[in-house]
Amino acid sequence: MSGAADMMARDAASALLGMVVVRAEPGDAVVSMHVREDMLNGFAITHGGFVFTLADTAFAIACNEDERVTVAAGADISFLRSTVAGQTLTAHAVRRARSGRTGLYDVRVTDEAGEVVAEVRGRSVTTGRTPPALDN
Amino acid sequence: MSGAADMMARDAASALLGMVVVRAEPGDAVVSMHVREDMLNGFAITHGGFVFTLADTAFAIACNEDERVTVAAGADISFLRSTVAGQTLTAHAVRRARSGRTGLYDVRVTDEAGEVVAEVRGRSVTTGRTPPALDN
Amino acid sequence: MSGAADMMARDAASALLGMVVVRAEPGDAVVSMHVREDMLNGFAITHGGFVFTLADTAFAIACNEDERVTVAAGADISFLRSTVAGQTLTAHAVRRARSGRTGLYDVRVTDEAGEVVAEVRGRSVTTGRTPPALDN
Amino acid sequence: MSGAADMMARDAASALLGMVVVRAEPGDAVVSMHVREDMLNGFAITHGGFVFTLADTAFAIACNEDERVTVAAGADISFLRSTVAGQTLTAHAVRRARSGRTGLYDVRVTDEAGEVVAEVRGRSVTTGRTPPALDN
Repeated sequence: MSGAADMMARDAASALLGMVVVRAEPGDAVVSMHVREDMLNGFAITHGGFVFTLADTAFAIACNEDERVTVAAGADISFLRSTVAGQTLTAHAVRRARSGRTGLYDVRVTDEAGEVVAEVRGRSVTTGRTPPALDN
Repeated sequence: MSGAADMMARDAASALLGMVVVRAEPGDAVVSMHVREDMLNGFAITHGGFVFTLADTAFAIACNEDERVTVAAGADISFLRSTVAGQTLTAHAVRRARSGRTGLYDVRVTDEAGEVVAEVRGRSVTTGRTPPALDN
Repeated sequence: MSGAADMMARDAASALLGMVVVRAEPGDAVVSMHVREDMLNGFAITHGGFVFTLADTAFAIACNEDERVTVAAGADISFLRSTVAGQTLTAHAVRRARSGRTGLYDVRVTDEAGEVVAEVRGRSVTTGRTPPALDN
Repeated sequence: MSGAADMMARDAASALLGMVVVRAEPGDAVVSMHVREDMLNGFAITHGGFVFTLADTAFAIACNEDERVTVAAGADISFLRSTVAGQTLTAHAVRRARSGRTGLYDVRVTDEAGEVVAEVRGRSVTTGRTPPALDN
């Protein structure tokens, strides 16, 4: 099992939000999520934090390109369109640049009609560590 | 009830993560969250998306300073320290600048020892709308 | 003369840095600059501010897509590689998304060998104004 | 001579824009600049790139807190108010957080009336190198 798949197998946070990994390739990942009522904020639209969390998960898969642990140093999100319960969001993360231990990844979040919901740029740092062993 | 309190009363997303609003003033908000096992990512640390969600919630409260709806146009997060289940995170959002319809808010996320976990800068846009009526 | 060409004809700042507009299309612009000795910082490398200025100029041309004035609301830059005097930098700006009055543009700055020097994401706002008349 | 003063003494780029260092302390720097006609863009306002360059210079001084070379990994700027020739801009950079080799610095750019022109957040990385010897 690849590092990314291994990583997702134990990702409780993504499971809490019902995320589904559609693609998990080095530098290219797709994750989708169905928006539930309990993901809405006080304005009855999808909480921006969960839109970010979806994008961040796709980013984490895309940037863990080899056996070393790569973590997010940071990210910037622009919110372009609000969504509501019942919609399906898809985050597509692709590598934009890598230089030494740092990387940049672009994540586009779209709704089921293909409209852009958010754009994220993630900044990664690759550590010298390997992932912790899977408990089982 | 103020706009911000009204807004939080119907925020299902924040409830899903067990967030507690500690302070809700115009331009100044504090929200805390206890990190649960189901908030961890595949590296057994708090999912960055949930750290962002906590900060984004404090930002939403702080930037809704009057009766008009103010939304997040975007935000940048820098991750400085990882945390694990059992810790308590607190996000403190303060207004940094407002000009016309746009605002900038700084959110610092700290752990129970006061160590900085993340720094977020949120960008807001104030709309001409008022919030939807509370269903009850 | 198009709005972008008109705009650049009176851009003294870009002239100060010797910038050359290679392409000026709506949503797609290329600008290049030869790095001079007086563009270096105290570490003898190109001042990051001038790398940003080059990218910002390409962004300004790309985002002024029609007769209305579009301005930069903000931008994020990641510095990936340093350069020195004698090198030639090229900034290529392309539209990534537009929604209402706001837009996102990606600008990649490369050196003469095609290596990535910096990546910029610009955030634009389109005003209701038209440009001031050209003095002549 | 401190590292920061030494660094500025050979900063040709800052000299090109007529910058004056008002304060140069570890984690706290102030730099000012008089806006000249040749710093304006095609809309007859100060080129955003030069506003950034001023902020970036203050950031560079503030983040070089010891004898090691610290460089900018990136920065985000929000433009809040435009300025014109004849005005004086001042950038004040302060350390916001440091963790390991990375740092975050906030830079506020104001005009001569104290109005906020731009807000910048810089991300630094401290290298293991010391600065090159001064040629003289």
